[in-house]
Order: sequence, then structure tokens, then C-alpha cells
Amino acid sequence: MAAVTPDEHERQQDGHCRARVNLRPAAARPFGAAARAALKDTLFPDDPFRGLGGMPPARRAWRVARYFVPALDWGAGYSAASFWYDLLAGVTIASLSIPQGISYATLAGIPPVIGLYSCFVPPLVYAVMGSSRNLGVGPVATSSLLVASIVGGKVRASDDQRLYTQLVFTSAFFTGVLQAALGLLRLGILVDFMSRPAITGFMGGTAIVIMLQQLKGFLGMTHFTTKTDIVSVLRYIFHNTHQWQWQSTVLGVCFLIFLVFTEQVRRRRPKLFWVSAMSPLLVVVVGCVFSFLIKGHKHGIPIVGTLKRGINPSSISQLKFQPEYVGVAMKAGFVSGMLALAEGVAVGRSFAAMKKERIDGNKEMVAFGLMNLIGSFTSCYITTGAFSKTAVNYHAGCRTAMSNAVMSVCMALVLVALAPLFRHTPLVALAAIITSSMLGLVKHREIRRLYEVDKADFAVCAAALLGVVFSTMITGLGVAVAISVLRALLHVARPSTSKLGRVSCGSGAGAADDDHAFCDVAQYPGAATAPSILVLQVAGSPVCFANAEYLRERIARWVEDEEKAVAGEDLLYVVLDIGGVTAIDSPGIEMLREVHGELERKGMKMAVTNPRMAVAEKLVLSGLAELVGESWMFLSNGDALAACRYTLQGSKHGGVPPV
Amino acid sequence: MAAVTPDEHERQQDGHCRARVNLRPAAARPFGAAARAALKDTLFPDDPFRGLGGMPPARRAWRVARYFVPALDWGAGYSAASFWYDLLAGVTIASLSIPQGISYATLAGIPPVIGLYSCFVPPLVYAVMGSSRNLGVGPVATSSLLVASIVGGKVRASDDQRLYTQLVFTSAFFTGVLQAALGLLRLGILVDFMSRPAITGFMGGTAIVIMLQQLKGFLGMTHFTTKTDIVSVLRYIFHNTHQWQWQSTVLGVCFLIFLVFTEQVRRRRPKLFWVSAMSPLLVVVVGCVFSFLIKGHKHGIPIVGTLKRGINPSSISQLKFQPEYVGVAMKAGFVSGMLALAEGVAVGRSFAAMKKERIDGNKEMVAFGLMNLIGSFTSCYITTGAFSKTAVNYHAGCRTAMSNAVMSVCMALVLVALAPLFRHTPLVALAAIITSSMLGLVKHREIRRLYEVDKADFAVCAAALLGVVFSTMITGLGVAVAISVLRALLHVARPSTSKLGRVSCGSGAGAADDDHAFCDVAQYPGAATAPSILVLQVAGSPVCFANAEYLRERIARWVEDEEKAVAGEDLLYVVLDIGGVTAIDSPGIEMLREVHGELERKGMKMAVTNPRMAVAEKLVLSGLAELVGESWMFLSNGDALAACRYTLQGSKHGGVPPV
Repeated sequence: MAAVTPDEHERQQDGHCRARVNLRPAAARPFGAAARAALKDTLFPDDPFRGLGGMPPARRAWRVARYFVPALDWGAGYSAASFWYDLLAGVTIASLSIPQGISYATLAGIPPVIGLYSCFVPPLVYAVMGSSRNLGVGPVATSSLLVASIVGGKVRASDDQRLYTQLVFTSAFFTGVLQAALGLLRLGILVDFMSRPAITGFMGGTAIVIMLQQLKGFLGMTHFTTKTDIVSVLRYIFHNTHQWQWQSTVLGVCFLIFLVFTEQVRRRRPKLFWVSAMSPLLVVVVGCVFSFLIKGHKHGIPIVGTLKRGINPSSISQLKFQPEYVGVAMKAGFVSGMLALAEGVAVGRSFAAMKKERIDGNKEMVAFGLMNLIGSFTSCYITTGAFSKTAVNYHAGCRTAMSNAVMSVCMALVLVALAPLFRHTPLVALAAIITSSMLGLVKHREIRRLYEVDKADFAVCAAALLGVVFSTMITGLGVAVAISVLRALLHVARPSTSKLGRVSCGSGAGAADDDHAFCDVAQYPGAATAPSILVLQVAGSPVCFANAEYLRERIARWVEDEEKAVAGEDLLYVVLDIGGVTAIDSPGIEMLREVHGELERKGMKMAVTNPRMAVAEKLVLSGLAELVGESWMFLSNGDALAACRYTLQGSKHGGVPPV
Repeated sequence: MAAVTPDEHERQQDGHCRARVNLRPAAARPFGAAARAALKDTLFPDDPFRGLGGMPPARRAWRVARYFVPALDWGAGYSAASFWYDLLAGVTIASLSIPQGISYATLAGIPPVIGLYSCFVPPLVYAVMGSSRNLGVGPVATSSLLVASIVGGKVRASDDQRLYTQLVFTSAFFTGVLQAALGLLRLGILVDFMSRPAITGFMGGTAIVIMLQQLKGFLGMTHFTTKTDIVSVLRYIFHNTHQWQWQSTVLGVCFLIFLVFTEQVRRRRPKLFWVSAMSPLLVVVVGCVFSFLIKGHKHGIPIVGTLKRGINPSSISQLKFQPEYVGVAMKAGFVSGMLALAEGVAVGRSFAAMKKERIDGNKEMVAFGLMNLIGSFTSCYITTGAFSKTAVNYHAGCRTAMSNAVMSVCMALVLVALAPLFRHTPLVALAAIITSSMLGLVKHREIRRLYEVDKADFAVCAAALLGVVFSTMITGLGVAVAISVLRALLHVARPSTSKLGRVSCGSGAGAADDDHAFCDVAQYPGAATAPSILVLQVAGSPVCFANAEYLRERIARWVEDEEKAVAGEDLLYVVLDIGGVTAIDSPGIEMLREVHGELERKGMKMAVTNPRMAVAEKLVLSGLAELVGESWMFLSNGDALAACRYTLQGSKHGGVPPV
């Protein structure tokens, strides 16, 4: 029997094969259509406007409006029954907002009343625009300290309080611009690059740093270092023992014990959530009364000081866009904005998951952005979804974002009527409140679990934590993000290659035909391989500039190894299974062309299995499909193997080398 | 018939199935071993020390030495016949080195003799350490201008030539340190992130910028702007028409026409390569004689000026490590070092590909690093593999790196004897030489091909080119690298998901059994899908923090769409084909857990197909394998489908919902 010529082989195959690799329709897809499809899938994975085309204009507008303003969505069917739940939840989180607002504003180095302002306007905006039903909005400790550490690097609050505060407002403005822009551009994708382990480490480190800062309050100190790393802070504290005032310490420890106790109560009995929710306000009230009665500020217990009555004044004229200051305000706004976004979206997602709801990252960004933008015009500083408030809101049984509106109204009442009463609040009470809320943020259990399940994730987490504690918050965050991004890039630079073998698997009872799979021979040592034929799988990443050279080397080594292994017989066919390769770029195509050339020189034939649409397109356009030959492109590895065996037999009988 | 319980199902399956998903050995693999294997595959894809264990110590040492010092490798079998080829090639490239050395040093703003020094020591180092047999080593235009633009930002050459030159030496030192470190740490991977389209665009833009700089020489101008962007340069030239000297222009155009003509001769007849190789030296010699005879520098033809006799003096004491200067030197060294590396490795690779040889990126980096490090001690500035020299070397028939040593010896002779003769070289001759060699770097054909094959690659290329031409070289390079990295990250953030259907394919003639494949239904509209069962494939990227949320949303949407599509029947099984997923991290595991939970709530069963070793490990460690149930993990989609159908039948007959 003579050798099979390429033509004959193709003809014979045509007769038997019921399906061929589909190259044509893909190649005909114009660039515009392909790019639009890719863009849509990248930026609109949720495809919000499906089936909108067929609707009448009015309904369509209403549907779009409901999409962009979630309040219209839940407001349309809002019932009185829901309102009572939201009222209770709103009042509860308002009671938490007063002490938190004052505390975090102190942490940020701005007048305490700004913390209260920031619990009035932003929650109102979020109630209208936010897509989460549980999120409680307000200032948070991490962003407060982060803004303080960046703005404080330019202007010290103790030197020029007015300018410092203006820069904090301006940074909130830039936060708003950034967040809204990311949301409108559908770049929620960027937040995804702050990996969970990175955020866990960063939060843990920040919690430690924030607790260290509270030593100022606990020790009744009146001055403090502007550094945040553990070494500087401890050195400052022990070099300034003369500032220590034991009265503050005693009071603070009592408060802290009380707060930790009520938190424990909530943990054991979730129904008593209001005990821990009310306790910070109780601490503040008790502290106020106590320091008012004993005139605490004259006996080693520093107090908050004047709090003006009245709701938020406009702060539009206070935004500083002079070239001298705009840089630091942008830096503070962008960095803390990204972090606040990551925190807010993460908090929202975890509670939404508990209620089995879905929240939309891009909509959340727009809501956060508007909240900070409008906030920066109305004397508010950076706000986001806060963990403690959200937890209380959730446990208090909130139904919709209406609870944020209720909180907002409560805060307005506090501002116009009660604010001055809080001027006697001892600073140590605030320190105790902050410290107790930070204790839960050092998630030692999660860190230990990371260590057990994934050492690399643990390394990212530890790097972020140590970076924050021993250097600066920016360093910690930078290191964590850099490691995360590098790991992601490494996946692209080093796709997986493996030699496949055939594993038979009877397909359960009930099915007539036997089945088989092609699996990694390293994982299934019993997998059957054919002599003269090497099946290689490339998977795990698109074939692109970042890995083309690597793949060329790695494939060459597989071929060499296989040649040695089958010393007796010649290796004649190399089947590349690229079914798991989702895209290929021009350096990738060049690489395949080189591999094809190298194999041809060695007298081997290259076959390609199951190229996907995007890959097939490029193979045709670049002429590689023609070079390899369409009859050497197969749908399955089994098919490829059979074809190799068939040509092999033909050539053996005829005594001529295979085509 | 009663419904099949999970236990029964498993038992029945056990009876029929000859292979199961292999979870055990993978789970037993300790972290250390897994990390070592991953690290080895990432950093040592070529596995240089295979089979070294069994050798006697002396042979082992010899083999390691030969690995690290390629000269020992080729030197051992070096023959006289090879030497004659290398001698010819070496002399030819030396004749090219003289004008190029002087030209590029002028471009870098340093005394011309340093360009000659740089063609003496570095090639000698490369001859010993380099792994490429064709590469011609020396200064290159891009790095020269890049160093000049960075160092010039700190100190202007016209203000303090001595300090400027010292900073250039120091930057070469840092280039050497960076390159050697990258090579020793096996981080060749970093160079892979400078994609070919990015480099094409950057080189094209740089060539245009360099040609613009040559207008100084062509117009005989004595002063010039330090900016490099096209707008500034053209504006300067047309604002300073009084500096123009027509004598230089006439001479320059004659030289340029001659050089372009000889280049055309070489293209048409590759055997006449020596015509174009010698022509720059001829231009210099003719120019020297001409300007000497007519006293050109007095008639509008500026000349090079004094060139000291003698080989490289030591420059160790000239390296500046003062905090004031070390920053700019490091920046210049690192940026131009990365670029020189990318250029050198790319040049080496393309010529090695023509000779069907392989060069080792990491070894090349060490060689380049040592070359620049030793160079910075001996009055040389940054050198790398140069395209023009390599091309001439290759065509002149070089056999080994010995040709670089020959060139080095020739340069030493020039330095001790002939250097002063070149002082009459007209600057316009150098401008003509540089311009003619830049013409080939604007690869308009390759750019057009990119436009045709891959619009995204074309965009990267265009961004780099326009960035360099209209802004600065650093901007262009930064933009190109940033776009490349973002594209790579996008692949990770948005893996591909597709619905699979069964496509039958008869497996050519000669094989007994029929075969089938599971393919994307969008690509193969005829693919058969089963009602009640949805087969989803995830591929193209590891499942990780960057895409976990996206995948959750995307899978949920596939399930929703499928539910709508099969309106009549219930969707009961979702089979996730993760055979193309090479790794999974903890957020990825959480995502799968959530998907499993969501499907369970909807009354659907999740099955998993063909998890790979690294993934199976994590599935077991995290307890997800137990949650899904081992009997719901299959080797192939066919197997999974059959099992689903079987349980479905059982449940239908019994009238109870499936397990």
C-alpha cells in the first residue's frame, strides 16, 4: 500500500468526519464587531439593558432611570411595614454615628463637628443612589488616618488648622471625582485587583496602627507624633512619660472593658445587637456627664471642646485648587478613595451575600462618588460603607437604604439641637470607642486560615500588615497591591504546559458508549500515551508576548524529553491542544510559526486541536492555518491521534516518511 | 423504579468507571515541593542542570563552568578554520565601530573618544561571557539618546562636561548592576513584558527623534535644543535660521545619498555586504581628508576636534555615588538598561533564529551586566547588542563570539595609533551615518502588518511611537509598557466562559471508535446540548481574586439565560468544565463555594470536570471537594453528562427530585 498523500488523506477524512474545525465564520467577523463583543463582556458582564430595544420609549426611560437610581427601584414598592424596620435600624445606627463621627474626625485631625456633618449629607445621597440595602454609610477609621497621614505630610493640622481642613475637603472632592469616574467608565475591574488577602493584611495593620494612635487618648497626652509606624510611636510615648496622666488611663480602661463586654454579649446573643450598638453613645454620654461634674479637663482628662450648633455650612469656597496644594489633595483623594472603594464594596458584598442579594460594583462606585462629591461641597470629609454601621444596620433588620435616610434626619436633629452638649466628651472615651472597634479588624483567624490553605496569599497578607505597621500605610498598601499584580502577571508569563495521555472512564450506568478523556500524565500516571505521538496541552493564559518565548522553549524541551524517552522509535507527531487558550497575539502567532518550522526541520508534523473562535480568527488572518494545513487541525485529541495513527500506518506500509 | 440515592449512585458508578478524578496524591503534595516545582518551572524553564547528579565532581564542575562561561563551551572545540571566518568578520565590524562609536558618543553628549573606548572593553567581556555567536556588541543610538535625555535633565553637558561624563559612567555602572542581578535572579521574565509591538513602536519613534537631532549636523548648527520632541526641535530650527550653514548641508546630503545607495546594494546582493559595512568608514575618511584639505571648520563645516591617543583609562574614581547625583544616575542606568537589554536580547534572538540556534536570555543578561559593569570602570558608557553590527557580523560569516574579540583588538590598535587622525571628521559625516542607520528602524511594513492582523497590538505600537515623537522617550516607553501590562492583566481579570455542546467527529479512517468533542456553541452552532444540563467552560486564566467576582456574576448570568432558554423544562445540572484552569486561590475557592450554594438554593446540582493537579489540591484542602461530592467530579464532560442523565432518569421514574 502506497503512502497517503496530503490530498488523499484530506479526502478520506472528509468522508468520515462529520465536523471540522470551524475557521470560516470566525475569520469573517469584522474587527469592530469582535471589539464590541469583547468590550461589552469586559465592562458590562451583567448586561443591564438586555431586551430594552423592544420597549416603548417611556417605559424604556423609566427602566434606565430605575437602573441608575436604585431608590426608584425599591421606592416604587415601598411599604409602611418596611418603614418601621428602617426607622428602628436608622435610629440605632444614628446612635452609633455620633460617637464614631466625633472619633474619626479627631483621628483625621479635623474639627469633630465635621465628623457629624459627614453623617448627615453622604448617607442621604447614598439612600437615593446606592444599590446595597444593608450598607451603613459614614466616615471610617482607615481612610481617616490615611487622609491625615498624606495631608499631614504637607501641612500640619497643629500649624494651620484652617488650611489643613480645606485640604481634607479638597481631597474628598477628588475622591468623589475618581470614584464617580471609575463607576461611569465601568472600571469596577480596578477594585478587583485589591485582593482579599491584601485588604485583610492592610486592614489588620491599619487597626494596629490606629490602636497605637489611641494611646495618646488613653495616656491623656496633649501632644503626639505625626508618624504612624510602631517604632516611632512607642519611642515617642516612652520618651514623653512626663505627659502621661493616670486619670485618663483609669477612665479609658473602664470604658474599654465595658465596650468589649457589650461586644461579647452581641456575639453570644445576636438578638441583643442593640446593647453593643448603643454602648458607644452610652460611653460618650456617661463620659460627658462625668467630666462635666468633676471638671475633668482640669484634672488630667482632656475633652473635645466647642461644637458649633447648626447643620453643614457650604464648603465650596474652601476647596483649594492652587497648584501648590492640588497635588497633595489629589494624592490623598485618589489613594484613600481607592481604599475606601475597596472597603465599601467589600463590606457591601459580604452582607449582600448573607441576604443572598447581589450588589453592583459599578453602581456602588457612582453612588460613593456622588456622596463624596456632594459631601465635599457641604463640609464633609471622605465617607464610605462602614463595617460596624453596616453590621448594626443588618442586625437591626433594615429593609432598604431608607435606614440611611433616617440616620441622616437624626443627625440633622442632633446638629441643630444637641451638638453643644457633646463638648464635654472626654477624648479618652473616643479612644476607647475606636480601640474597641479596631480589635475586630485584626482577623487572626482568617490570617491563620490563609497560612493553611495558601502560603502565597498569606505572604501578600503578611507583607501588607508588616508594611503598614513598620513603615507607612502607603507602603503597606503599595507592597500588597504590587505583589498581587505581579502574581497575576506571573500567571500570564508562565502558562501551564503538560503532556496529555488518554484516560478511559466508563460513563456511569445508563449510558451506552464508553468515554475517555485526555489528562495530564503527571496527574494520572496510568494515562495511555502513544509512541511517536506527543500530545501537549497549553492552558492557563492567552498565548501572548509575555509568554511566547517561554512557550517556545518549554515546547522544545517537551519534544526533546519525549525524543529521549522513546529512544527506540521516532517521534513523528506533536499535537498541540490549545482548546484552553482564549486569545493569541502577534508574537504568539510568530511563536507557533517558529515551533512549526522547528518541528518540520526535525521531520515531525504539528497538529492543532480545537482552536477557539478568537484564536482561529488570528490563525487564518496570519496565514498560519494554511501553513499547518486545515487537515491537521482537529476538534478533539482523540480525532488528532487517530489521524496521526492512520497516516503513520500508511507511511509504514509504503516505506516513505509521513507527510 | 425508585430514585437513586447518592450512595447507590456512587456505588453504581464505581462499578463502571475505570478512572476517577485523581485528588489524593495531589492533596498529599507538601507546600515545599509544590512551591519548588512551580519556582523551577517559572525561573528555569530550560532546566540547565538536568542529569548532573550522577556525574563525578570534576566533570560536574566543568559542566557548570561551561554553562556559565560559554567561551569554554565553544573554545574547547575551536578550530583554525573558524578563526579565519571570525577574523574577517571582526575586522569588518571594527571598521563599522569607529564611525559608530564617535557618532553615538556625540549623540550621548560625551567626548567622542568614549565611544571608541566602548568598542574595546565590552566586546572583549562579551566574547567570554556571551551565549550568542552572532551578536556584535557596542553602543547603540537609542540608549545613547535616552541616557543623554535623562542625565541632561540634571546636568547639561554644555555647562559641566566633566560632571556630565561622570554621571554617564555611573549610569553605566547601575545598568551593569541591574542587568547582572536580573540575570542571576533569573528574571529574564521581566524583559518579556516589553512586547514586540511596543518595542517596534518605541524604536520607530526613537529613530524619528534621532533623525531630527541630526538636523543639527546637516544644517551645520553649533547650538541645539535639549528637547527631543518633534514640535520643540522644528520650532528651534526654524527660529534659528541664522545658524544654518549651507556647506554642511551639501556635504551631508552627498554622504547620505552614498550611504543609502550602498545599503540598497547590500539589500539587492547580500554577498556585497562589505560595501555597506565599509561605507561609513569610507565616509569618515573622505570627510576627514576633505575637511583637512579645505580647512572645513573655517568654512561652515564643524569637525569632531581633538581625540586623545591611548587605550581606556580607569574611571573607577569618577563614579559619583553622592546622594545628590545617585538618583539621576540610577534612573538613567535602570531605564536605559532595561531598554538596552530588551534591544540586545531581541537582536540576539532574531539572528539566532536565522541560524536555528538558541540563546539563553538569562545568560545574556549576566553577560550584558558584566560588560557594562567592567565598562563603567574603564571609561565606557552603556553598550548592548547592536542591530547593524550584528547584521554585518552575521553576513560576514562569523562563527563564534571570537569575532567580538577580534573587533576589540582592532579597536585597541586604532586607539593607540590612529585615533588623532579622526579629529578632522566633519560632524555632518556622523549625522549622515546615524541618519542612514536610523532609516531602517522605522519599520513601516511591520506596523502596517500589525494594523492588519491585530488592532490592539497596533494601538500599543502607535502609542509608543507617538509618545516618543510628541513627548519624551520615557513617556513613550512608559505608555507602551503600561498598555502591554494592562492588556495582560485584563486577560486575568476577564477569563473566558462559554457554553459547551457536543460535536461529533469521525476520527479519520483507520480508527475504530467514533469520537466527540465539547466545543463552544457560539463557535459551533450545530453542537448538541442536553435540556436540563448546562455545560460551562471556564478557561484562559487562573481563577483568582482578580476575576472571582466577575466569574460569579458571569456564571449566574449563563444559568439565568439557560433557565429562560429551556422555559419548558427545569435546568437541573450545571457542569463546570475547569480543565483549562491552571490555578485557583482562596477568593476563587470562595467564589466556587458561593456558586455551589446559589445553585443548590435553586435546586440545581453542580458538577466539576477535570480539575488539574494544583486546583484539585486546593479543592481538597479547602473542603470544597467534600461539599461538591467526589462522585460529582468527573474526568470528562461526556462522563459528567452521562451521570447527570442517569440520575435524572432515576429521579423521573421515582418522581422525586434528583440528588
